[in-house]
Amino acid sequence: MSERVLVQQLQGLSDGPVTVSGWVETVRDQKKVQFVILRDETGAVQLVNPATRPATDPEAAGEQDADALALTALISELTTGTFLTVTGDLKHDERVKLGGVEIKIGTLEVASAALPETPIAADSGMDKRMDWRFLDLRQRRNNLIFRVQTTLEHAMRSYWIERDYIEIHTPKLMASASESNAELFEVPYFEDKTAYLAQSPQFYKQMAQVAGFGKIFEIAPAFRADPSFTSRHATEFTSIDAEISWIDSHEDVAAMQEELLATAIQAVKDKHGDEIQELFGIEVQVPAVPFPRIPLAEAREIVKARGYDIPRTDGDLDPEGERQISAYVEETYGHQFVFITDYHPEIRAFYHMRDEQTGLTKSYDLLFKGVEITTGAQREHRVDVLIEQAEEKGLEPEHLEFYLDFFRFGAPPHGGFGMGLARVMMLLLGQDSIREVTYLFRGPTRLAP
Amino acid sequence: MSERVLVQQLQGLSDGPVTVSGWVETVRDQKKVQFVILRDETGAVQLVNPATRPATDPEAAGEQDADALALTALISELTTGTFLTVTGDLKHDERVKLGGVEIKIGTLEVASAALPETPIAADSGMDKRMDWRFLDLRQRRNNLIFRVQTTLEHAMRSYWIERDYIEIHTPKLMASASESNAELFEVPYFEDKTAYLAQSPQFYKQMAQVAGFGKIFEIAPAFRADPSFTSRHATEFTSIDAEISWIDSHEDVAAMQEELLATAIQAVKDKHGDEIQELFGIEVQVPAVPFPRIPLAEAREIVKARGYDIPRTDGDLDPEGERQISAYVEETYGHQFVFITDYHPEIRAFYHMRDEQTGLTKSYDLLFKGVEITTGAQREHRVDVLIEQAEEKGLEPEHLEFYLDFFRFGAPPHGGFGMGLARVMMLLLGQDSIREVTYLFRGPTRLAP
Repeated sequence: MSERVLVQQLQGLSDGPVTVSGWVETVRDQKKVQFVILRDETGAVQLVNPATRPATDPEAAGEQDADALALTALISELTTGTFLTVTGDLKHDERVKLGGVEIKIGTLEVASAALPETPIAADSGMDKRMDWRFLDLRQRRNNLIFRVQTTLEHAMRSYWIERDYIEIHTPKLMASASESNAELFEVPYFEDKTAYLAQSPQFYKQMAQVAGFGKIFEIAPAFRADPSFTSRHATEFTSIDAEISWIDSHEDVAAMQEELLATAIQAVKDKHGDEIQELFGIEVQVPAVPFPRIPLAEAREIVKARGYDIPRTDGDLDPEGERQISAYVEETYGHQFVFITDYHPEIRAFYHMRDEQTGLTKSYDLLFKGVEITTGAQREHRVDVLIEQAEEKGLEPEHLEFYLDFFRFGAPPHGGFGMGLARVMMLLLGQDSIREVTYLFRGPTRLAP
Repeated sequence: MSERVLVQQLQGLSDGPVTVSGWVETVRDQKKVQFVILRDETGAVQLVNPATRPATDPEAAGEQDADALALTALISELTTGTFLTVTGDLKHDERVKLGGVEIKIGTLEVASAALPETPIAADSGMDKRMDWRFLDLRQRRNNLIFRVQTTLEHAMRSYWIERDYIEIHTPKLMASASESNAELFEVPYFEDKTAYLAQSPQFYKQMAQVAGFGKIFEIAPAFRADPSFTSRHATEFTSIDAEISWIDSHEDVAAMQEELLATAIQAVKDKHGDEIQELFGIEVQVPAVPFPRIPLAEAREIVKARGYDIPRTDGDLDPEGERQISAYVEETYGHQFVFITDYHPEIRAFYHMRDEQTGLTKSYDLLFKGVEITTGAQREHRVDVLIEQAEEKGLEPEHLEFYLDFFRFGAPPHGGFGMGLARVMMLLLGQDSIREVTYLFRGPTRLAP
């Protein structure tokens, strides 16, 4: 491995010889001195070289240092994005704005030169930036997004592991739909069969409960053949899922999820809070637990009282309604999260358990800064009730046999949630589209790069 | 959340009232006393009830406790697999073989009764067990497999996170093949386009390097339309991938991977070593680093000298050759791992970098107990060389344009590996098929449950 030093380590080093590797962000090629801003995954540093230009006077030319001439010429030709390694002399100098250090170039080795014309600029539109995502991701802000995501996910997994959850990998190729027959990708399979891409790990994380796993989690891709072009939808997304046994109601799931999120956001704030403030202008707020809870009917009343009449007739919130109720919660409780509870079975999946008193589902949606990030629920584990509920939705139990079988040989009461990673990241960093926080977005018209 | 106690906690509790939840493993319904073995995700415990049978004498019957009669009848009807919660009196008793404790049943609440006929038995064949995988997974051995896997993965991710790797989620829907045009699943996409399921995250983890991410990892599904039925192949598998920049050769990748594996296997041994010994009869060996390295040509000579003539004419090892060279390494160095190096370009992917002196690829395979678990390599990052190598393989660069573009705007030297999770787990636990260690196996004739 190269003996390179990361840029963020330079300030802590003494003056002297050092090697750095990264890519060229800018070159300032002045007559007497050349400056290169080199960036790596941890920061940027100024490289400097006193220029040695070819003398016009033949006599003076004869005395010029060939290496110095070559180095100057090489730097003059450097293009933005070129990856290189420089060994030189580190010098601390308070006048250097970029970190108070600079490196006088000794040797410079180009690993791979970039074409001179960069196809995107700082002000390129989203679509063009997605075409050239590998260049777009070189920006410090974008790099930070994925370091934040790494911290967020690891904090969640650590939370679960410390509590003896089992991590599972459920199959993404299925013989039937996992959520609904709409938005289903088909995959021609062997022997003229058809496979379907999992819309969620729903059935299989429930399977872990009847298998006696107790508590499980999975972070994995999910697929929806969703033709919509909103800022919140994708045809492929990363789904964060957990499922736990022996719950009394969906409240036990909500209690776990709020603690999980508070823990993970605390980890993000601790590690990246200052940098998020600097690059996104956002102060990360660690949510207090418990999060506020509002029954759906009450939420609709509150929204109406605020002057917004929800046009949906099915009793649910619409996106503007979600923004309104979140605004209310923020104003009233100073909280960015809210659980909306007590959904009518008509607007919920057949497998949601219903409350015996109210007939409403034992489920919730979780909103974060006005956008839904999760549906959670206690699942119906009594097979006769489950069949009834499936039939009520017009589903044909014979297509669900493999799933219904899970509950014929004993099942514990259980529930869980699914949460969209990109939505959480988008809202956490105040972005207006999941495209901004997705490594490579996939939508109806977007399969590349 | 129910106030239940996990079975493994019982030994540490004092005698007194306690609540446990789990499923019925066996019922011993004797005339005077009833025993139920209840299992949860942490262990099994004996429940006991002094039976109260209906008296035939009408006078005696009148004096019988109705609750006691009902409880006895309920226990008599319990079927294997029924999930239930019992509150009762915990009592330490050295004579009880199962953990030295038993619980005298006070109340018993059935969460969900199992059908009386369990469709699989301890001696059922693999295919039948896969049909009823959710029952098969209730076995203690199978539960342990996934707890071991959880520990293994978390130790790997922690290793990377501590070293500032970024976790990425690469898309599984692609506009072209990621490895070869064979074994490719097609997905009809929007607007009559065709998407393909990612055979590996290869191109996209390399993209992270040109994006300046430095060091990345991903654990995610990969798909191969592979018609084979061996014990080592699946149409969907969990791939463990890492990629790092500024390497000098594949040796830097190998050095990271061996340290990663030693760390992760150490974590498994620490947490589950005794239980693996008990249930699988295997002593987990933490591999010493560095692992042995043997050039491919030398490996073939060694295998030949052992009396096995490899029938392959392409210069590679075959499965028996892999077993033989591993046996040699085990005998000679007492090591379960070996890196095979110096593969000829003809038997490697076009993107493997070649050594300028030897013309051989800067790549390796890693064998564990005689089975290949990884291919690792330095990648070619010079676009002109890359195009040449692609053409040499008969690939048409125009189909690779999006990938080649990655290298036209600057790229660092980089490399990485892909490792099959199920293979590692199979070998670690001495199993003879990846089916045994996969949550839900997918193969040419297996899409369910």
